Amino acid sequence: MNGAESLVRTLVKGGVEVCFANPGTSEMHFVGALDRVEGMRCVLGLFEGVCSGAADGYYRMTDKPASTLLHLGPGLANAAANLHNAKKAGSGIVNIVGEHALYHIKYDTPLTADIEGIARPFSHWVKTSPTSKTVATDGAAAIQAARVAPGQIATLILPADTAWTEADGVADTPETPLPQKPANEEVVAAAKALKGGQSAMLFIGGRALRARGLELAGKIAAKTGCKVQAAGGTARIERGAGRVPVLRLHFVVETAQEMLKGTKHMVLCGAKAPAAFFAYPGKPSVLVPEGCDVTTLCPVEGDPIGSLEALAAELDAMNEKPAVAQPKRPDRPTGKFTLDGLGQALGATMPEGAIVVDESVTTGRGFFPYSVGAPPHDWLNNMGGSIGFGGPVAVGAAVACPDRKVICMIGDGSAMYTIQSLWTMARENLDVCVMIFSNRNYKILYSQLADVGAANPGPRAIDMLTLDRPTLEFTLLAKGMGVPGAKAHDLEELTKQLTYAMSHKGPYLIDVVM
Amino acid sequence: MNGAESLVRTLVKGGVEVCFANPGTSEMHFVGALDRVEGMRCVLGLFEGVCSGAADGYYRMTDKPASTLLHLGPGLANAAANLHNAKKAGSGIVNIVGEHALYHIKYDTPLTADIEGIARPFSHWVKTSPTSKTVATDGAAAIQAARVAPGQIATLILPADTAWTEADGVADTPETPLPQKPANEEVVAAAKALKGGQSAMLFIGGRALRARGLELAGKIAAKTGCKVQAAGGTARIERGAGRVPVLRLHFVVETAQEMLKGTKHMVLCGAKAPAAFFAYPGKPSVLVPEGCDVTTLCPVEGDPIGSLEALAAELDAMNEKPAVAQPKRPDRPTGKFTLDGLGQALGATMPEGAIVVDESVTTGRGFFPYSVGAPPHDWLNNMGGSIGFGGPVAVGAAVACPDRKVICMIGDGSAMYTIQSLWTMARENLDVCVMIFSNRNYKILYSQLADVGAANPGPRAIDMLTLDRPTLEFTLLAKGMGVPGAKAHDLEELTKQLTYAMSHKGPYLIDVVM
Repeated sequence: MNGAESLVRTLVKGGVEVCFANPGTSEMHFVGALDRVEGMRCVLGLFEGVCSGAADGYYRMTDKPASTLLHLGPGLANAAANLHNAKKAGSGIVNIVGEHALYHIKYDTPLTADIEGIARPFSHWVKTSPTSKTVATDGAAAIQAARVAPGQIATLILPADTAWTEADGVADTPETPLPQKPANEEVVAAAKALKGGQSAMLFIGGRALRARGLELAGKIAAKTGCKVQAAGGTARIERGAGRVPVLRLHFVVETAQEMLKGTKHMVLCGAKAPAAFFAYPGKPSVLVPEGCDVTTLCPVEGDPIGSLEALAAELDAMNEKPAVAQPKRPDRPTGKFTLDGLGQALGATMPEGAIVVDESVTTGRGFFPYSVGAPPHDWLNNMGGSIGFGGPVAVGAAVACPDRKVICMIGDGSAMYTIQSLWTMARENLDVCVMIFSNRNYKILYSQLADVGAANPGPRAIDMLTLDRPTLEFTLLAKGMGVPGAKAHDLEELTKQLTYAMSHKGPYLIDVVM
Repeated sequence: MNGAESLVRTLVKGGVEVCFANPGTSEMHFVGALDRVEGMRCVLGLFEGVCSGAADGYYRMTDKPASTLLHLGPGLANAAANLHNAKKAGSGIVNIVGEHALYHIKYDTPLTADIEGIARPFSHWVKTSPTSKTVATDGAAAIQAARVAPGQIATLILPADTAWTEADGVADTPETPLPQKPANEEVVAAAKALKGGQSAMLFIGGRALRARGLELAGKIAAKTGCKVQAAGGTARIERGAGRVPVLRLHFVVETAQEMLKGTKHMVLCGAKAPAAFFAYPGKPSVLVPEGCDVTTLCPVEGDPIGSLEALAAELDAMNEKPAVAQPKRPDRPTGKFTLDGLGQALGATMPEGAIVVDESVTTGRGFFPYSVGAPPHDWLNNMGGSIGFGGPVAVGAAVACPDRKVICMIGDGSAMYTIQSLWTMARENLDVCVMIFSNRNYKILYSQLADVGAANPGPRAIDMLTLDRPTLEFTLLAKGMGVPGAKAHDLEELTKQLTYAMSHKGPYLIDVVM
């Protein structure tokens, strides 16, 4: 057994069952080992950002790390933007990055680069395996690192000679230490803060947004009268009828301030204290209202659900009945496109168990109310702000949950960064409905120009924000990669298209021409 | 004048006249300044790898750095693979990367990342400008750094508050020190080595491959009888009728060894000693034949043409007549596609002044002989080995040379990494003929599997190398981005399509269905 095979076997034994791959020469032994090892599904992406984003989506839906297989420094660099998003979302990923044979690096040939240096800003754990004998234990250590709560990016660099030389065997993955629970005095302090009723807020993120976490938060709110607010960035919210509804903090500073207004006591659980996404002249970075005290029940890397259980017990709230969303869908909307109408079309058609991957940027900010009573579903948002997130994360979610419909909403500008994800959807026949919101702009940048004080843009500035010259024809792009689709020009057409997509398995693209 | 405007004015004053941009919120002041400053052409890319590759192509054709405008850490990361290629090619680029306002970084909001850490592996020079008053001088220092021979990657990080705060003014760009000329004893040593005749080889790269460098090399060969050999990676060769022809060192180790066989004295000028692209079990990394002595006349960062002039003078070769290529085109080929036929089709149709951007990978290795007598043209190759190079570099070459036809040859696998480059070609109406060689494979990896000793691949390994499920329809992808095109199924169709493309201005794509 060579080093590559010892690594593949170690990954499979350690529960890493999927590899999102874009391999090259230095990864050929890993690829060769796939035929000798059972249990590793290998999914090809035509661009590495598809692979890293897919691993992110897979983790969000399974809480299990997938691996990526990337070709030396540039392959890792192409994966980096979606690794950034995954890192911010607390998704665990095991990156396997090929490297030249160690004795070859000193010749500084074309693909030689500082791979560890490239990995470090996007990884919690980085190692170059020094010999074929260490590859298995290093692989196991990478899995262990990827599992540290809420999930970490582990990057194992695999020199070609360590892959092709004889190895010792397979390694067992050590247990990952469980996240710390809050100390009793922290629970008591949080309970005390929340007794402030309407002036108190439970500010939650991470796995507190799973159904069980929200149920506990709902019990606590029922008991104390506190508000429950989700952070602006949320990796996955379990929502819909029967679940405790929660709103995400708004991107726009003034709207976020309005949502937090009047809060005197804030308790953090699985989330950091709210801060503005960007800085703007004359606007605050910190969104916590003045004079509001902040108590951390559970940090981002803690155990939010265990913490909420302790808090609910401390408050004697375990038997409270939380306010949950009642089953209710909006009517099927008609007429010209409006942002509300788009939200209604989605809420009216989404099936039970849908996984909504939301990179709708400006378009989808107001969609939540229209799906709060839809059948139970998951909603995944971008936590790293790097666009090109939607398609790849949808790939990973669909690989993770083959029996569920994935609905991927992307702004046209965002969609183009990782448009190659459509091909993988076709290749793997993934059950994804892609909605492109074609407003022919980097729309968000219009408001941002004003917000940063660069108002009254002239023609050259405007030219950098517009995507209408030429028009992007997403149905052709999709067809060119094997994904069928259609345009929708109004809400009737959209609702009809969505209804078709929801009742058919496999990838389908709807170009929402706004 | 704010910091952003002081930077744009400094760039223009320093001769940086093009910005390949994919901006976001933190770059809005730079964008806003474009309307107040004359002299900066801003070209939008839908993915940052298009911008960095375009800046590489622009430098190769002008010897002048362009700037890129990138959105924080992830935007820089998306640009990184083509920055890697540019760095290896010795192309000068000034990257402007937005950053959060400095006071905002500590809140670790979604887009916060270690931008300097991301930049370092891909840059020769990195700086975060600390205040609006330093932005202009830091910008000038970045230009100076980018101009260091043969060209360097300079990355200036521009925090939003330094962009929007009042600046002092515009800075002058300091002179960049000229590259060192060889010492007299080095010239004498090189001259002595080359007097070995057929057992001596002048091994050249960088600007030695421009017409003047090749002419000097030809004179030296005429005088001494030495061989002249180009390195495997060549940023730009000026070739065609009337120029001294030269072959690039082959990618395949055995073929490269054959080309270097019998060499006892090797003189390096603008190139490093030849090494294998990858390491393979049982094959050498070093390609210099055993017992061959190596003399460095001019290192990669030196002055190859000045060095060749000194060497030719030392050898009393200045009045020699070099052997140049005679005007001769191949006949227009007919019949089914063959690799030779493809080379003939290109050689038969390429116009004078063509710029060939070659990312043909396995397909184009044998094309050189068929265009050696074609009208004078430039040939640009990938020196960093990161695929996704062709389209973006063609964009930059076309922006640099609007009166010349750019012919961009890309393998289908490679094309998908930066397929967004087609949109910029359409938007700017760039005169580029894109040929996609659709062999439905990562073809190079088949031979590489065997070369690294992972022979007899099974179905799962093969699946990672094949692109035929589903078929990529490049004419649809092109049309979706506003670029017309057609398929060619045999050599007649291809030659007809090429003839059409060469006689029409603007972007055109030919899908060569092999």
